[in-house]
Amino acid sequence: MTETRKKSVLVVGGGSVGAIAALNLHVGGLASVTVALRSNYHIVNEHGYSIESCDHGLLKGFRPSIVYKGVPDLVANSLPPYDYIILCTKSIPDLSPTSLELISPALPTNNTHTTLVLLQNGLNIEKPFLDAHPRTVILSGISLIGSAEPNYGRIVQNEPDRLLIGAFQHPTIDEETASTKAREFVTLYSASGRNDCKYSPNVVHDRWRKLVYNACFNPICAVTGIDSGRIRLADGGLDGLVRPAMNEIVTAAKAVANVVLEDDVVEKVIATDPLESWAKPSMLQDLEKGNFIEFENLLGEPLREGRKAGVPMPTLEVLYQLARVIQWRTKEAKDLVTVSAQ
Amino acid sequence: MTETRKKSVLVVGGGSVGAIAALNLHVGGLASVTVALRSNYHIVNEHGYSIESCDHGLLKGFRPSIVYKGVPDLVANSLPPYDYIILCTKSIPDLSPTSLELISPALPTNNTHTTLVLLQNGLNIEKPFLDAHPRTVILSGISLIGSAEPNYGRIVQNEPDRLLIGAFQHPTIDEETASTKAREFVTLYSASGRNDCKYSPNVVHDRWRKLVYNACFNPICAVTGIDSGRIRLADGGLDGLVRPAMNEIVTAAKAVANVVLEDDVVEKVIATDPLESWAKPSMLQDLEKGNFIEFENLLGEPLREGRKAGVPMPTLEVLYQLARVIQWRTKEAKDLVTVSAQ
Repeated sequence: MTETRKKSVLVVGGGSVGAIAALNLHVGGLASVTVALRSNYHIVNEHGYSIESCDHGLLKGFRPSIVYKGVPDLVANSLPPYDYIILCTKSIPDLSPTSLELISPALPTNNTHTTLVLLQNGLNIEKPFLDAHPRTVILSGISLIGSAEPNYGRIVQNEPDRLLIGAFQHPTIDEETASTKAREFVTLYSASGRNDCKYSPNVVHDRWRKLVYNACFNPICAVTGIDSGRIRLADGGLDGLVRPAMNEIVTAAKAVANVVLEDDVVEKVIATDPLESWAKPSMLQDLEKGNFIEFENLLGEPLREGRKAGVPMPTLEVLYQLARVIQWRTKEAKDLVTVSAQ
Repeated sequence: MTETRKKSVLVVGGGSVGAIAALNLHVGGLASVTVALRSNYHIVNEHGYSIESCDHGLLKGFRPSIVYKGVPDLVANSLPPYDYIILCTKSIPDLSPTSLELISPALPTNNTHTTLVLLQNGLNIEKPFLDAHPRTVILSGISLIGSAEPNYGRIVQNEPDRLLIGAFQHPTIDEETASTKAREFVTLYSASGRNDCKYSPNVVHDRWRKLVYNACFNPICAVTGIDSGRIRLADGGLDGLVRPAMNEIVTAAKAVANVVLEDDVVEKVIATDPLESWAKPSMLQDLEKGNFIEFENLLGEPLREGRKAGVPMPTLEVLYQLARVIQWRTKEAKDLVTVSAQ
């Protein structure tokens, strides 16, 4: 009987962030967790996750309640709608299928029941979902976790799971309804007692604040091929690239969204990763694995918004164009674009 | 007796450009050619060069008259000064030893006899030599050859050897004296009949003209890791990077040196390499080999000169800072800088 009162949660994307989210919800006991996997489906379905976590310790063979290959089709499987869908994939709108297309089998048209949680980075990630599902409550999840999946199904979490949850602004749903869902989700997620998940009403501020890291360290480290420690030591790294890029984000945050970041935000964000952790930002990790990079929401959107507001963003402009070329290179490597034979 | 009338020429650096220069001077018969080698010394000294050349055909075991390991010390070897020293190394002033230090054993202080030919790319390469050897005639050599050294001692030349020779402006040597030396060198070099070596009085124009390619395609292809054909096909390649960078050089050429490049120079330079030759600019080749890149004279100097003249150069600025970081990365790989242990 207790089981029926659990919230049904579908976690879409069970990589380094999604696996820890699934684990927290499972351990918390207030949710029944289904995970929709792609690249690591076979390994996780057969052996479960192998997790080394600073929050949860060592876990061999962790399995969510149900594991799907891909997003389950509600109609085809005669499933009731989920209470929550948490999207934990990378946000790569320049590729097909988009995140919106990916989750559509599990999210009915005109849905009002399911709450969607976008546990993804960057700016304007909610827009396509708000357009397609205007009656769905959509929550923002900003994860400040340090976690990686060095091999399929093996999750190494070396920085605590800090998660900021708030509601995006909806055209037709009032703030109270949306924020109530956000607080409910925080309760579900926090129940494990092994994370620092907080309700944070100022989603726009939080997203711009995180862009100071993500729009800057991410592409700079990816393009130069060095980690966030070395970029602080390299000739030209901080004064030539990181600081100018971060200052452009700080200026854009104010001009675009009236978000005033703290005075010393640039130096604080530079020091986020301890120097000698030689941390590789996710975009560099993705490139090294031959994967696509999520540069449009991390870099393209703040750039476009900043430009519209009249903010000069020369550093981010060049980094963005370089990222486009690098994404094209990955497309060629994956045979998604064709050049004439050599 | 004929032998004594030959000019003595020391070619410093016998890579893809220097080897073909040595070959032309040797075949022309008006020069006695000594080559100073470093990385490929042992192979060339033992087996000679293996050359596949569109100008000279196939040559197995080509040996210049004399091969030295490093630059010969005139005093220690009781050698008379050379008539010409041709510097064909990469120009990497951010590394030690500099080109100036490299050739100093073969160039006496207060030299007036030896003419120095800088067969190197970029802006302001002559400045340290003019400062240290104000009484030496210094010639500019701009090579438009297509040539590579895929393995030590193996030279593949697939584009004709076109060479523009002129005299730099000297503070204390009159133009007539310097240009006479330039014309004499053209005679020596052209004598083989297998190249297109011309006297070109407008060194400053020629150098800025070549920067339209070198300051732009070189760093853009190096940073993105793709060739000069693919960068024309990639999202953002031409409109986001190549054209803006080239336009910055065109504007700087006018502002800095009153050099007016032809109206369609940008599109002409974009089409320099046939698309499907998938040509890798030298900086990309250097990176792929783990070598240092010659970004200071190709990119740093035009940027600094342009900035001084008030030209906005946002694209080249970011490319320059990225190149500095990449050079630092190579220094770390070669143990020339140390970061704390991981």
